Amino acid sequence: MLTLYYAPNTASLAPHIALEQAGADYRLERVDFEAAQQRSPDYLAVNPKGRVPSLVTDRGVLTETPAILLYLAQRYPGADMAPLDDPFELARVQAFNVFLCSTVHVAHAHKHRGTRWVAATDTAALEAMTRNVPQTMTAAFELIERTMIGEPWACGEQFGIADMYLFTMTRWLASDKVELARFPKVAAHCERMASVPAVQRVMPHHPPRD
Amino acid sequence: MLTLYYAPNTASLAPHIALEQAGADYRLERVDFEAAQQRSPDYLAVNPKGRVPSLVTDRGVLTETPAILLYLAQRYPGADMAPLDDPFELARVQAFNVFLCSTVHVAHAHKHRGTRWVAATDTAALEAMTRNVPQTMTAAFELIERTMIGEPWACGEQFGIADMYLFTMTRWLASDKVELARFPKVAAHCERMASVPAVQRVMPHHPPRD
Repeated sequence: MLTLYYAPNTASLAPHIALEQAGADYRLERVDFEAAQQRSPDYLAVNPKGRVPSLVTDRGVLTETPAILLYLAQRYPGADMAPLDDPFELARVQAFNVFLCSTVHVAHAHKHRGTRWVAATDTAALEAMTRNVPQTMTAAFELIERTMIGEPWACGEQFGIADMYLFTMTRWLASDKVELARFPKVAAHCERMASVPAVQRVMPHHPPRD
Repeated sequence: MLTLYYAPNTASLAPHIALEQAGADYRLERVDFEAAQQRSPDYLAVNPKGRVPSLVTDRGVLTETPAILLYLAQRYPGADMAPLDDPFELARVQAFNVFLCSTVHVAHAHKHRGTRWVAATDTAALEAMTRNVPQTMTAAFELIERTMIGEPWACGEQFGIADMYLFTMTRWLASDKVELARFPKVAAHCERMASVPAVQRVMPHHPPRD
């Protein structure tokens, strides 16, 4: 039995889809961001980083979305969620996911989470960060559209963990004031994802948030 | 034959060590950051992100340090640079490296690369970002010291790709005005790394930079 600590419509949507796609035996634990539960002593005992997702396994806790996704792909090879037997193709999937994590997620986080990088008293800096998010998210998705995304899925023929993570971040564009229609391939991917049964089953847990 | 596009003392130090440790047949291509060569059309044709490292393989170009490191570990299994047969342990290694990439590297980049997130005209915001780097780097390394680092190596018994990447970022602390001595386990790890033959062989290519 696995336990996924999650918050709605955060990065934890991606491993949630993977668990469902894999047919894993899992349960959800919602972390209440409005109550800052991610900073509570109980949650910090699970994940000292105070972030979601965390995946509790029989051997310990895993963190960091790209790592959790790779773990689920390897733990459930029958679900065929990554090219496990091809190191080059697997590295391309990992490169996709690491870009989403370290560039796209970080760009998005400058909207409301600027105090990760400047003092809370630097209000002008925080405002400048928030103001620039549409530009940085646009630049990142232009790169995805122009140089990264495959067809029909993010990395080509095989549906898998990069699709789940890309879909998660694509859903953030509207609240970041970026028009999805600017990126026709990403938009088509998002629509395709919305028709995947595993995605449909988890979406009730992930209403949009700002 | 592999080609590593690198710049001295950047994240590309980590795959450089891995190539050397693996005994790979590779050559180096230095990207001249002072001349903004990473933004040149020639380099953007290799890596549209305009970043290093890039690893050119016989099947195509790989980017993103954690993905390149995993690829090298898988391509050279005899070098034993990652727990390839244990998905849980491998996920722990990947989680370590993704944290370095998306939290530590990003914190460090706010010193000189703030225009990734705010406009170049937002000088007060850029100054606020630079000013805060010692705090964010300290917080990240406190987390590593307290909750992540193993002994004798980053993930425990096995020397490997997380060590190479951690060592790379540890070397940035001095220019970020953070005292390494505050983190005794990280400091001991850094010293241990400096005695690894593969590390010693690559260091002449990586003089410190600000």
